[in-house]
Amino acid sequence: MATAEFRITIHMVSSVDGIIAKKDNSISWFETSHKYDKGVTGQDPVEFLKTIDCYVMGSRTYELAVELSKSYGWAYGHKPTIVLTSRNLPTAGPQIEFYSGELSKLVNERLKPNYKNVWVVGGSSLTKNFIQQKLADEIRLSMLPIILGEGLPFFDHIGLEQVLHLKDTTAYKNGMVELRYQIIK
Amino acid sequence: MATAEFRITIHMVSSVDGIIAKKDNSISWFETSHKYDKGVTGQDPVEFLKTIDCYVMGSRTYELAVELSKSYGWAYGHKPTIVLTSRNLPTAGPQIEFYSGELSKLVNERLKPNYKNVWVVGGSSLTKNFIQQKLADEIRLSMLPIILGEGLPFFDHIGLEQVLHLKDTTAYKNGMVELRYQIIK
Repeated sequence: MATAEFRITIHMVSSVDGIIAKKDNSISWFETSHKYDKGVTGQDPVEFLKTIDCYVMGSRTYELAVELSKSYGWAYGHKPTIVLTSRNLPTAGPQIEFYSGELSKLVNERLKPNYKNVWVVGGSSLTKNFIQQKLADEIRLSMLPIILGEGLPFFDHIGLEQVLHLKDTTAYKNGMVELRYQIIK
Repeated sequence: MATAEFRITIHMVSSVDGIIAKKDNSISWFETSHKYDKGVTGQDPVEFLKTIDCYVMGSRTYELAVELSKSYGWAYGHKPTIVLTSRNLPTAGPQIEFYSGELSKLVNERLKPNYKNVWVVGGSSLTKNFIQQKLADEIRLSMLPIILGEGLPFFDHIGLEQVLHLKDTTAYKNGMVELRYQIIK
């Protein structure tokens, strides 16, 4: 990806009703039991994750990731992970960096000079800020074939309208549908 | 469709953030400006709508449809349309029938003997009742390439978990993605 342009992608894995985390934080709903015969098998996740070179997340998403790491390990490997917070949170490892300043400054001074493929992985208010300030380039929505009915929504009435441009759709054998949208600026 | 089995489909046209109606009820967001080159052109809507032989909707969805009909005409043609309500609402035409009894009775005694392809077109609480009582067979989600940010959500924390089975995905030239799910009973 050395020649690729700098790009910030907002990513979510959600249910059909837009929920990204259950109230009890269990993640067994990621495993689907039905097969979608017309789907493709997933891209090699190791190869795919290699192309991401920095994660950005809000503080509650970070706390959830720390909580889940106790059972499943830290989900974001050794990649630099920047947590937006003004709180004093315990660190999950040397790759974690806490940031409390302006988002545009983070993007222009910290991310752009150092990375190519930055992923924002939640939550809802951070997503809103990235979209509102026209700082994100893409939304990638991985939708699992389930209705959860309650929990933490990704788009929680973010209160702004944003036109998107469909770039790609992929349906996987496990019934997950991945939708890629460009954010029109 | 004479040989098809009886089927109840829950249908929604929504934004990426799951909103089905804006606060001002405007519908210009249905028109997209960008082209998705890999998409297919839509099925002939007249031919497609012919296969639906009955609509079912909640009272607020009906009131919204009546409101919109003043500008755009009645969206459901001459097809029988059953409105679930205990209120005394003005009728929009001879094809409208009001119903206030049990949902299972409606399905088994009124819909099953008379129709094959019934579409439930909202809103959220009616959808919830159909799913909760295992009365619906499919969900068809037509997602437009826009974030609306606020408005009427289709899945409004419906409070129950429901496993789905992806049946088909279609991306259209206008950037709309249609997802068909079977409701696992």
